Amino acid sequence: MVKPLAVALGDPAGIGPEIVAAAWAMRRQMNLPPFFAIGDRRSLAAVWDGPVQTLGGPADAAAAFDEALPLVQVDDPGEIVPGDPNLAGARCALDSLEIAVGLARTGTAAGLITGPVSKAQLYAIGFTYPGQTEFIAERCGVSTGNVVMMLAGPSLRTVPVTIHTALADVPRALTTELIMTRARVTARGLQRDFGIAQPRLSVAGLNPHAGEGGTLGREELDIIAPAIEALRLEGLDITGPHSADTMFHAEARARYDVALCMYHDQALIPMKTLDFNDGVNVTLGLPIIRTSPDHGTAFNIAGKSIASPDAMIAAIRMAGACAARRCAG
Amino acid sequence: MVKPLAVALGDPAGIGPEIVAAAWAMRRQMNLPPFFAIGDRRSLAAVWDGPVQTLGGPADAAAAFDEALPLVQVDDPGEIVPGDPNLAGARCALDSLEIAVGLARTGTAAGLITGPVSKAQLYAIGFTYPGQTEFIAERCGVSTGNVVMMLAGPSLRTVPVTIHTALADVPRALTTELIMTRARVTARGLQRDFGIAQPRLSVAGLNPHAGEGGTLGREELDIIAPAIEALRLEGLDITGPHSADTMFHAEARARYDVALCMYHDQALIPMKTLDFNDGVNVTLGLPIIRTSPDHGTAFNIAGKSIASPDAMIAAIRMAGACAARRCAG
Repeated sequence: MVKPLAVALGDPAGIGPEIVAAAWAMRRQMNLPPFFAIGDRRSLAAVWDGPVQTLGGPADAAAAFDEALPLVQVDDPGEIVPGDPNLAGARCALDSLEIAVGLARTGTAAGLITGPVSKAQLYAIGFTYPGQTEFIAERCGVSTGNVVMMLAGPSLRTVPVTIHTALADVPRALTTELIMTRARVTARGLQRDFGIAQPRLSVAGLNPHAGEGGTLGREELDIIAPAIEALRLEGLDITGPHSADTMFHAEARARYDVALCMYHDQALIPMKTLDFNDGVNVTLGLPIIRTSPDHGTAFNIAGKSIASPDAMIAAIRMAGACAARRCAG
Repeated sequence: MVKPLAVALGDPAGIGPEIVAAAWAMRRQMNLPPFFAIGDRRSLAAVWDGPVQTLGGPADAAAAFDEALPLVQVDDPGEIVPGDPNLAGARCALDSLEIAVGLARTGTAAGLITGPVSKAQLYAIGFTYPGQTEFIAERCGVSTGNVVMMLAGPSLRTVPVTIHTALADVPRALTTELIMTRARVTARGLQRDFGIAQPRLSVAGLNPHAGEGGTLGREELDIIAPAIEALRLEGLDITGPHSADTMFHAEARARYDVALCMYHDQALIPMKTLDFNDGVNVTLGLPIIRTSPDHGTAFNIAGKSIASPDAMIAAIRMAGACAARRCAG
């Protein structure tokens, strides 16, 4: 039997609690796999009047799921005011994340979905990781250099080779080795978790028109093309470097399973242009399955019942599908 | 009476002749304004068996348009083989462009549409401009710094502040003054040629998350925000710098008339993702109206009757609409 998924609620003052509750409420029509929330009961009660069942342990989640949103309660953070984050809430978010990772790591949960957190709040309580992904990687014993962030929506999958790097630093940060590592982890992740036997990777250039033969920048010739060539020799189905601007219309997208992009906006612009409301952030290269809705805490709209649960629903559904493949595989 | 538009056929071995012919064939169903082609008769005959009427002069174009594609013949380039460019063809393309600009400049034509040329071929015959746009600007007596390339499709309008600049050079090329010049020309162009009384400009950041308050790059704080502030004091309706990745979904696009982007792919990725087949390149800031389909010569498919005329049709239609507004204004 497939184990339930663990959903860390994220910052209790953000939109995490309400979108997880909304996802549970739509579990039948969206055909969602069983999951349980990890976080604080009051953060749910502040934004939702549906049924919550506090669990003795994750083992009870599957039985409870049909009738109530199953919850693993963390240390009580005190009063929660949606839209008004505080340090107790940040500690609650970190506790939720830590417990959720542990349950996924031990196999008690089939996979992990992380709700949105505030990095600024986490830093204020002494969190020293750039983000949740690096924390999860370390807890899983994997070097952060060997995990890959993939954005996946109904229209497109993209992987940014560099991520939170100032644009001026991107050319220096790009190396043949980095591109190769990202490509290998991506290809393995698509095979293992997405059931794509021979993934087709399409690699973007860095410069306008992919450098136009060197006249608009040499990174394609000196860094990107050698990576593609070496990866092809390893047996990967990989093409490029392509002009980034002509990679993302429907006809072009049909030619690959994932686009490897050189920097944040090159990957995120097409993703959010096409799949703004249901983009999922998937971490590849971990021993566990981990997805996350591709949006933030949205404190400005928290508690107003206007946050779309679409990305959370997509993240839960995708984690469930990946988990089922690993069980079958 | 509105004058006809002049359409330079571009490189005779590219897809220019066949898409102009296809546009003429669809003139009634697409409700296109009268236009005439400038180029070589044989380049049309090589790819199309429809009626062509060689004109004594542009004055006869409107009368001929209903029954045949009106053509102003340039010096005969000799044999034309679609897909196989040569220097005589490049000279033909340049002749066509020069005549077309002259006719638009003198008001004999209501506006100018330029077909795709091969820069490599033009350079080989001694053309010293970076592209057609700079040539046209000089012939119109306008500094190239004061003209703006705008991409316009059914979903979106974008302006790249820097264009054919290697990505590593973009941060250095961006200045407050450059952004201000581009914004002013863009706003005036939208007022004059697109009938938008108070255009809403939305400005993208350069870095991921628009620099996140300076932690992911300082260009937003040091260069872009001061430009926006100064332009607002001049009376422009302008916002930003925004995270580029969240500017291009439908809800965000409804909030502005044009997106000012910091570099080529930031403007071109969303444009070609959304409007791949019918994007138009408009040159703002000229005394004449000039549009162009947003694609190249496509030598590899020339003469095979598979090139889509959609962008050429959109370019002709847009030039016609702009011309009608200038006449009325």
